Amino acid sequence: MRRELVAAAVRLFRTRGYEETTVDDIAAAAGVGRRTFFRYFPSKEDAISPDHEVALARIDEVLTTAHPTEPTASLVVRAGETVFDLYAEDPGLSVERFRLTHEVPALRDRESARVDHYRRLFTRRLRERFAGEPDGDLRAAVIGAAVVAAHNLALRGWLAGGGRPDDVEHHRERFRKVIDLLPREPGTPDVTERLEAAVARLERHA
Amino acid sequence: MRRELVAAAVRLFRTRGYEETTVDDIAAAAGVGRRTFFRYFPSKEDAISPDHEVALARIDEVLTTAHPTEPTASLVVRAGETVFDLYAEDPGLSVERFRLTHEVPALRDRESARVDHYRRLFTRRLRERFAGEPDGDLRAAVIGAAVVAAHNLALRGWLAGGGRPDDVEHHRERFRKVIDLLPREPGTPDVTERLEAAVARLERHA
Repeated sequence: MRRELVAAAVRLFRTRGYEETTVDDIAAAAGVGRRTFFRYFPSKEDAISPDHEVALARIDEVLTTAHPTEPTASLVVRAGETVFDLYAEDPGLSVERFRLTHEVPALRDRESARVDHYRRLFTRRLRERFAGEPDGDLRAAVIGAAVVAAHNLALRGWLAGGGRPDDVEHHRERFRKVIDLLPREPGTPDVTERLEAAVARLERHA
Repeated sequence: MRRELVAAAVRLFRTRGYEETTVDDIAAAAGVGRRTFFRYFPSKEDAISPDHEVALARIDEVLTTAHPTEPTASLVVRAGETVFDLYAEDPGLSVERFRLTHEVPALRDRESARVDHYRRLFTRRLRERFAGEPDGDLRAAVIGAAVVAAHNLALRGWLAGGGRPDDVEHHRERFRKVIDLLPREPGTPDVTERLEAAVARLERHA
């Protein structure tokens, strides 16, 4: 039923216009009453974004079940990719939603708020992970914001290009590049520093 | 007049409650009519945040007038600090606004939207700065999001602690630490180049 309601909402928003469509219209088009609609969605705006809670739950599961030794960059990219997967499961709906979000101010505001939920979830979990580390809060805030921004850029790139299944991997790869732009794990001297130190030891012996 | 209206709005929101206060109440308390109020603010929500456009303009000025050789990290921190200055000019109002933003859902949503304006402005200007560089869009998105997240964390830390003038410098310093967490400037010597230099030093000693 959820699926039927989403399909009806997308069809009506597109043909009749978002503002002109009521919850009653969507319910009727799906062959049910408005009470049934409200069992699935709290409001009209939610009828085309049914996956937000699922997306947050998937991210949270990855972040809370990760092994403590997994590098943070790999962890946050894994978590972000679950959202990519979710959008890629139904490219037609994802593209339609993307278009409507750009055209309808009410949906755009909703979308901004949603993106901020992701950012706050990442930041909160990372703060727990970095608890006790110097400037752990700051690192959590920076990484949380950075990973969500990179994810959105890549996902929107895919959707703006029509959401073609053949293109998913290219844009997913683009998202993964954020790994190189995230702050270095504290406590792990980077490759360069370690090698420079090795050469310096060698120099002392030369 | 703007200042009087802001003072009246803060006083009424605090004593009577945000929802219970009307634009007419604010105007009357400042000794003017509602038409005068609307000459200064588009809505009730804006009455306690009159500086948003000023803040965006200051950020934009720093970003658009910067010398091309200034390191990006120093540039974005300079731009972010102009907003810190703005809040520090009137700590009492800033703290009051911060408290109300936490208590009133309508103001909280407004605040999220505002923060997103900052992020988008940084990202847009950085994208121009990085035009033609590989993954310039991604770097712009990551740095824009990171700097705004760090700024908010530091600013909110200061306001949550009461917005004391003596503490400003400490929280400003906290914001500046974001410099160490931003991606490396492309074109700065990479791993290979640094190792080549180290090995060259070794060769000279061999």
